[in-house]
Amino acid sequence: MVFEKLQTLELPASADMHVHLRDGATKNLVVPSIRAGGVNCVMVMPNLVPPITTVAHALQYQASLQALEPKVQFLMSLYLHPDVTPATIAEAAAAGIKNVKSYPAGVTTNSSAGVVDYSVFYPVFAAMESHNMILNLHGELPSTADSSITVLSAEEKFLPTLRTLHEAFPRLRIILEHCTTAAAIEAVKACGPTVAATITAHHLYLTIDEVVGNAHHFCKPVAKLPADRKALLSAAAAGGEKFFFGSDSAPHALSAKEMRGKPAAGCFTQGEATQLVLEAFVGAVGKGLLKEEEVTVEGIEGFLGGYGRKFYGVEANGEKIVLKRGASKVADMLRGEGDLEIMPFRAGEETWSLEWKA
Amino acid sequence: MVFEKLQTLELPASADMHVHLRDGATKNLVVPSIRAGGVNCVMVMPNLVPPITTVAHALQYQASLQALEPKVQFLMSLYLHPDVTPATIAEAAAAGIKNVKSYPAGVTTNSSAGVVDYSVFYPVFAAMESHNMILNLHGELPSTADSSITVLSAEEKFLPTLRTLHEAFPRLRIILEHCTTAAAIEAVKACGPTVAATITAHHLYLTIDEVVGNAHHFCKPVAKLPADRKALLSAAAAGGEKFFFGSDSAPHALSAKEMRGKPAAGCFTQGEATQLVLEAFVGAVGKGLLKEEEVTVEGIEGFLGGYGRKFYGVEANGEKIVLKRGASKVADMLRGEGDLEIMPFRAGEETWSLEWKA
Repeated sequence: MVFEKLQTLELPASADMHVHLRDGATKNLVVPSIRAGGVNCVMVMPNLVPPITTVAHALQYQASLQALEPKVQFLMSLYLHPDVTPATIAEAAAAGIKNVKSYPAGVTTNSSAGVVDYSVFYPVFAAMESHNMILNLHGELPSTADSSITVLSAEEKFLPTLRTLHEAFPRLRIILEHCTTAAAIEAVKACGPTVAATITAHHLYLTIDEVVGNAHHFCKPVAKLPADRKALLSAAAAGGEKFFFGSDSAPHALSAKEMRGKPAAGCFTQGEATQLVLEAFVGAVGKGLLKEEEVTVEGIEGFLGGYGRKFYGVEANGEKIVLKRGASKVADMLRGEGDLEIMPFRAGEETWSLEWKA
Repeated sequence: MVFEKLQTLELPASADMHVHLRDGATKNLVVPSIRAGGVNCVMVMPNLVPPITTVAHALQYQASLQALEPKVQFLMSLYLHPDVTPATIAEAAAAGIKNVKSYPAGVTTNSSAGVVDYSVFYPVFAAMESHNMILNLHGELPSTADSSITVLSAEEKFLPTLRTLHEAFPRLRIILEHCTTAAAIEAVKACGPTVAATITAHHLYLTIDEVVGNAHHFCKPVAKLPADRKALLSAAAAGGEKFFFGSDSAPHALSAKEMRGKPAAGCFTQGEATQLVLEAFVGAVGKGLLKEEEVTVEGIEGFLGGYGRKFYGVEANGEKIVLKRGASKVADMLRGEGDLEIMPFRAGEETWSLEWKA
């Protein structure tokens, strides 16, 4: 692709296979931004308070989302938890729920009810395998009392767990979410075709240098080294079907992001989801982090929607989006009900404009 | 030392061999906090705007500090810069200036005038060697366009430069400042007796996990891994004469620390300098990061003052301080002229009380 001449691009609507839409005022503000980011299909995370552990809760939540935005397809997930049994899985599959999400206990937002020991869930995984459901893994080991695991090593130290689960359930479809390391990319490639990975938009931009001291770049897993970022860019642009987009867009109130001491983890990218990915590819080619030949329309379409829809077994509805380079700016701030303010990633920066094709 | 029973400690006044006192309202607020931290001798950094590159500027600055606080000994330094020549060194030595500080260009606060190539300063280093002056090194390599150096590797990648300088000038006394890695501690140990190192208070507390996303823990060099922190604790408590206290206390206005995008680098520890070090040792023993036998009154006295004074060739004046465990709290905020606010490290946390012995 000749990037210097690339000013306009028409693409199928994107699918974002990892979103946080929350509840209440945040939900009301964030859900309308999904289509602003060129997305018409999202995989919705279940880490509400309390977490979504029943089919009834998932369907009720889905209905509330659908009411806010009828033109987005909301794929739902359950939160892996002792309340989720093989019977729950059968019920979920019958109700069209695609996914179960595993949070290691304590590593990120609303994960205190998360997993300590995966083996206790083997009967659940067996049921998921037989019902063709997908296991989404937040791939970090939690911190330990002896401090042997840090934010820098937590993902790489989780990779043996991924391999163990894949070997125990080779037919279970697994997604290693929001990869941040070259090691994770390699681990996913080394697994069979049932194992895929998502990559966020913000991890295509950040390294640890931009995360130290900067609450607005703080997310879990944290961005790692330049070589890791390069591996993510290559996997996203040209890694094939195993790698697809999941923004992990995480809306937090400005007050929670800028709280002294312990800022909330997450970057909010929903309203610019597609635009940010395109801009990351263009920027990376400009800086020599991606070769021009790695970036193709086929690869972009696959990463932004095709591969994810295929893995989830959902059809695109034919909607198209048209993007123009440098023709817009990321909002400085989103403002919602009450005094809710949410600051987007790359607030105020130049971006692509996006329109839905009539 | 039996820490469980340690409730009171009488020590010689501390010497802090790396302080930032700034100018204007910040100076007026910070200088009086030196003795609050149990310190009566400080090595003052020259990174004002403009930097201190002349003897006249250093002496004028020293006089302004002395006027604010007559009961502190202010050791002065020049900023290594093309304006500093062998003739400047001779003049500085005659004026009692002990020290030249080298900032690699661009790595920290007010370092834009810093060093790109050390070899151009070899005539200056030779003059310093013959006048028995000390070279203070901010030991980080600056970032490069190809991103091969990150905040995590910048110190370790500087260590060959330390070795090269030491080999070229074996009699030149060199301080590797604010060590943050086990590798730096080992490199200093491996050099001859002319090479020493300073260790800050905040690096005895922090690891990278506490720095990601937290502007108030962001300083350069950034805190590294748990094993590095453990090496710093051991070197500070029981590393002998090569390792002494330099707080690198860096006052920044709250607005600069909490600025979105690029927070100012530095932790402000001046008013609690001695207390923070004691608390770090006690906490580390409690968590098994230090063995009780590593922490001795002799080691504490050496680290907090004796070794630094010996390296700089200054005498203690016999003043004593008395500390009581858990008898005070770190201030929530320091407030100065105008709307200046400076938030201390560990604001609001329990700390030792400190009194000067009559």
